[in-house]
Amino acid sequence: MRFFSDNAAPAHPKVLKAIAAANRIDTAYDGDEWSRRLDGAFSNLFETQVRAFWVSTGTATNCLALAALCPPYGGILCHRDAHIEVDEAGAPAFFTGGAKLMLVDGPGEKISSETLAATVESIRKDVHQVQPKAISITNATYGGLAYRTSEVAAIGEIAKRSGLGLHMDGARFANAVVSTGESPADLTWRSGVDALSFGFTKNGGLNAEALILFRPELAEEVAVYRKRSGHLLSKGRMLAAQILAMLEDDLWLDNARAANAAAQTLANAAPGRLSHPVEANQVFLKVTADEAADLRAQGFDFYDWKPGEIRLVTGWDQNGPATDKLASAIAAL
Amino acid sequence: MRFFSDNAAPAHPKVLKAIAAANRIDTAYDGDEWSRRLDGAFSNLFETQVRAFWVSTGTATNCLALAALCPPYGGILCHRDAHIEVDEAGAPAFFTGGAKLMLVDGPGEKISSETLAATVESIRKDVHQVQPKAISITNATYGGLAYRTSEVAAIGEIAKRSGLGLHMDGARFANAVVSTGESPADLTWRSGVDALSFGFTKNGGLNAEALILFRPELAEEVAVYRKRSGHLLSKGRMLAAQILAMLEDDLWLDNARAANAAAQTLANAAPGRLSHPVEANQVFLKVTADEAADLRAQGFDFYDWKPGEIRLVTGWDQNGPATDKLASAIAAL
Amino acid sequence: MRFFSDNAAPAHPKVLKAIAAANRIDTAYDGDEWSRRLDGAFSNLFETQVRAFWVSTGTATNCLALAALCPPYGGILCHRDAHIEVDEAGAPAFFTGGAKLMLVDGPGEKISSETLAATVESIRKDVHQVQPKAISITNATYGGLAYRTSEVAAIGEIAKRSGLGLHMDGARFANAVVSTGESPADLTWRSGVDALSFGFTKNGGLNAEALILFRPELAEEVAVYRKRSGHLLSKGRMLAAQILAMLEDDLWLDNARAANAAAQTLANAAPGRLSHPVEANQVFLKVTADEAADLRAQGFDFYDWKPGEIRLVTGWDQNGPATDKLASAIAAL
Amino acid sequence: MRFFSDNAAPAHPKVLKAIAAANRIDTAYDGDEWSRRLDGAFSNLFETQVRAFWVSTGTATNCLALAALCPPYGGILCHRDAHIEVDEAGAPAFFTGGAKLMLVDGPGEKISSETLAATVESIRKDVHQVQPKAISITNATYGGLAYRTSEVAAIGEIAKRSGLGLHMDGARFANAVVSTGESPADLTWRSGVDALSFGFTKNGGLNAEALILFRPELAEEVAVYRKRSGHLLSKGRMLAAQILAMLEDDLWLDNARAANAAAQTLANAAPGRLSHPVEANQVFLKVTADEAADLRAQGFDFYDWKPGEIRLVTGWDQNGPATDKLASAIAAL
Repeated sequence: MRFFSDNAAPAHPKVLKAIAAANRIDTAYDGDEWSRRLDGAFSNLFETQVRAFWVSTGTATNCLALAALCPPYGGILCHRDAHIEVDEAGAPAFFTGGAKLMLVDGPGEKISSETLAATVESIRKDVHQVQPKAISITNATYGGLAYRTSEVAAIGEIAKRSGLGLHMDGARFANAVVSTGESPADLTWRSGVDALSFGFTKNGGLNAEALILFRPELAEEVAVYRKRSGHLLSKGRMLAAQILAMLEDDLWLDNARAANAAAQTLANAAPGRLSHPVEANQVFLKVTADEAADLRAQGFDFYDWKPGEIRLVTGWDQNGPATDKLASAIAAL
Repeated sequence: MRFFSDNAAPAHPKVLKAIAAANRIDTAYDGDEWSRRLDGAFSNLFETQVRAFWVSTGTATNCLALAALCPPYGGILCHRDAHIEVDEAGAPAFFTGGAKLMLVDGPGEKISSETLAATVESIRKDVHQVQPKAISITNATYGGLAYRTSEVAAIGEIAKRSGLGLHMDGARFANAVVSTGESPADLTWRSGVDALSFGFTKNGGLNAEALILFRPELAEEVAVYRKRSGHLLSKGRMLAAQILAMLEDDLWLDNARAANAAAQTLANAAPGRLSHPVEANQVFLKVTADEAADLRAQGFDFYDWKPGEIRLVTGWDQNGPATDKLASAIAAL
Repeated sequence: MRFFSDNAAPAHPKVLKAIAAANRIDTAYDGDEWSRRLDGAFSNLFETQVRAFWVSTGTATNCLALAALCPPYGGILCHRDAHIEVDEAGAPAFFTGGAKLMLVDGPGEKISSETLAATVESIRKDVHQVQPKAISITNATYGGLAYRTSEVAAIGEIAKRSGLGLHMDGARFANAVVSTGESPADLTWRSGVDALSFGFTKNGGLNAEALILFRPELAEEVAVYRKRSGHLLSKGRMLAAQILAMLEDDLWLDNARAANAAAQTLANAAPGRLSHPVEANQVFLKVTADEAADLRAQGFDFYDWKPGEIRLVTGWDQNGPATDKLASAIAAL
Repeated sequence: MRFFSDNAAPAHPKVLKAIAAANRIDTAYDGDEWSRRLDGAFSNLFETQVRAFWVSTGTATNCLALAALCPPYGGILCHRDAHIEVDEAGAPAFFTGGAKLMLVDGPGEKISSETLAATVESIRKDVHQVQPKAISITNATYGGLAYRTSEVAAIGEIAKRSGLGLHMDGARFANAVVSTGESPADLTWRSGVDALSFGFTKNGGLNAEALILFRPELAEEVAVYRKRSGHLLSKGRMLAAQILAMLEDDLWLDNARAANAAAQTLANAAPGRLSHPVEANQVFLKVTADEAADLRAQGFDFYDWKPGEIRLVTGWDQNGPATDKLASAIAAL
């Protein structure tokens, strides 16, 4: 039973069905009818005019946003353990042409506005030091926490005041929306977010993320970078169709709700073992090496996060028996 | 009836079926069972040990190869009308970190070894001029011609002699194999090719190309660049499964055979109007503006290549009535 | 006797004197009194408010300008034989992060506004083709011709209309000013030039060029790029002092006048042999291989430009006996 | 009286004299007699065959070395406060095409081999994390400490074992040689250093550093990058001549000896106030804000390093009255 990563989950049946339905002759690249519906669909969802681009990976989505927000010589403030810093093979430097990630600390891989402000303050305003041009936060965080609107807004305030672009890595944005109960609009542009990587792949998609631009003037540059980085698929309708299927009847919310609920089931099994509160679909648990081995012996698969800590990730399809079984096993440790 | 581009074609039903079959829990990225079978499958096909990587676009496949073959400060010799020069938004410069495309002329977008040798010769060997480090040829060419083994080998000879890497853009490699009747091995590594972009998307795939490395030592760098450029899909098995489906029972050859046959049907309709011989699935036809309008009025869709010339591209699913109808219409002009 | 390149000339004694005078304790980088005088000095010269930066090579000066005018994904229109295309080792791609040089033909390495307009027109306005963002012209050209104000203005008009930045490579700007008799202001910003590489090294400097920005808002980015590319010298006053010495009492004009006069002396020796009119300090002469050998046997040193053509370059210090001797030798061929 | 930076010092009279002597017609770029003498001069000094390049800034020298040692996708291990990290505007990312600086801590801006080994160990060996390819250490450190041969060798051992290139930023290499009393060869290639930025500008040069390659096979790439980054000066002889003047009769050692001695004079004035031992020409002193103001009121100029700490840097020309006066003032605090 796999609690290793939501990346490993299957795509939702409705997503496959949508691909099959789009599998007919149509314009190449993004001129097709599905791709052309994205702007409208997301503008509705976000209650404002946005530009939306399909992209096939989260890394590319993040980096297209960053390339639009930060010049080659700029800096991007992010958490020390952000995905863009630790798990993207230097893709932000590649896409931006050499921008520097400037690291900020914080528990649960969350950045507080106070720490962020202090970091910005500490950078000498001269030509010798790289000057920050953008901020990137992750919601839900890699550590399984969710930023609330007020927290995003405090960071958005700093961005505005300092002339920095604000990007949100929302590989698990759905989980954050479900967790906070706040609206997509409040969690993003109303709080100062300029660009959102809106993840679908971890949440039931096959290979489709959406880059949402709340500043439509960035679209021209993003369109060029998407092509230039080899991310303009010739049958882009296959990605657009996935995304539209996820939006239809709020499938994206249903899936995230299921994943979050599964995580809560695990969290409730051993509240004393949690490293952080569980606010999305990731559970960080303090267990000894022997206990971890014990769980593995029972057929559970997960990630050793650090000595004495494991990470359990629940997918959209796991709110059921396997999770209940793991919860019992944890409780029994 | 669309003769605009093979990019616009649907995916083959077997490809969709393979995706559905792979839609279950497995390791993320490329650790899954389908991805792990690629090296073996292509090593069989090419009769030598190769490394094979799935990639979701032709642009990315080409540029990953070029980044592995050419340093940031090097030059890449290619045809003046090569896809990498005219239609990839500068992606080769982006992936390589600034390498320069050095253009070579030739009819039908084909490079002769004589012209290539003369170009190499003309470059001053000093620090002021960019020095070539790689050659990229396209087979079948963008102009619808196929390189034969002897032609590739003559270019391979120059590459070897001058210490240049040799890349083949095989977005329509299948069409070239069918057209020449020569073996994949002869057309590539036995003729000096170091890396092949092996296209499937135009030939019945959904969004999968394969990068084949005949020099396995390049694999480590390609693996890093694939991640770094945002092309390591988390559910990579969905791409691997497509490619394996295309290889099974030679579906890739069947599809290319059908596309080429359709193109021959068009070519035979008006041999005197051909700009080049038709050696793959592209037909360049000399027609007046009035004639083009006439064809369009009959419901045919195609590309105005240049004044007095149109391009017709036939897909894997078009060897049938629509093509016959177009052939008649052409003959009747 | 060397007519090989004005690069090989010595620095003018007044320039060395200025360096010695600046050789005392002062602020590092460009905070010193000499550096701080540059903006004012060039604003006077150009009759408008400019920002001026010292840079130690022409290649860097050109590329700092191009990086400020063109994004990584843009194109730069220039002559096929421009220095940035043929003699800078790909530096424009390096500084801009991958911009593409888009080549324009024209005799004497001069671009006509008609050819330029046609080239701009020919570029498909889509995401697949690189879109031009800047133009770079060279005055005096590498072929020894000078653009007049009216010619620059016609190009400036195209730049304006198409939203392109306009850079002038003025490695031999002084020679063009002397040759045309037109004002620095007319030849540049009044004709639409945004940034000028104002050369001093070939004209009596030791290692100092000036980058003049007619759009002061570019200065912040240029300042960063100068540091980032390793061109912010710690004792920058040594460069500023050279430039100020060159401007003082119009030494730059005197030197260019002498170099141009020497070139005219050579041109007058054999008007029938000239490949182009001589409008600066470069003379392209049609001579046979035997004649070239004959001149070399008499101790003259020069560059074989192409079969049947030699290039003679006259420096600021050569309007005298050596030139007269060469003129006689040419006349006697 | 300036104790702000050795960058602000004048050039040594012998250096100016050498420039004047080289100010005659000669081959452009680096084909001249002075430039051609560099390899030999440094091969003698380092007791092995090296390749030596003049470069006009320390930033460029460091980054040319790093670009030769680290691919665009690699990491460079360096101290958290290294000049390349904090004071070069992202130049390492620019020159390498996006390499990542990986930071290591240590007092006095010195890296211990233990900390370095632990950092290397902590990096996951997969395609998601940037893999280190080079190490850069600074000798003497920015904090005024000198690495001894044994310390460099321990780091060289790690480099060798892990397949990493080893670069030494020797902007103050002369001060380290004088301070340790160890030979240039022992401190560099015999301890595993592949490339050395050998600084002259801070030590009496005007604008000349030398990049020393102990692996001559790197020279071809460095030569290209020097041109490509705009650092191939047309009158390169003016840089070569400076360096040769500095090497002649060990002027570089005499100057560093003087600077170090001046720093010792200051250190001896208040041993209890030192933040680190003084092993080169930089003195970090704990003083209150009032005391700092007091020193400034007496006409001394210096850098506020951090709250409660000032930095004093002594130049080659300061081992005399001004330093004695400052020492007295410090003692009197």
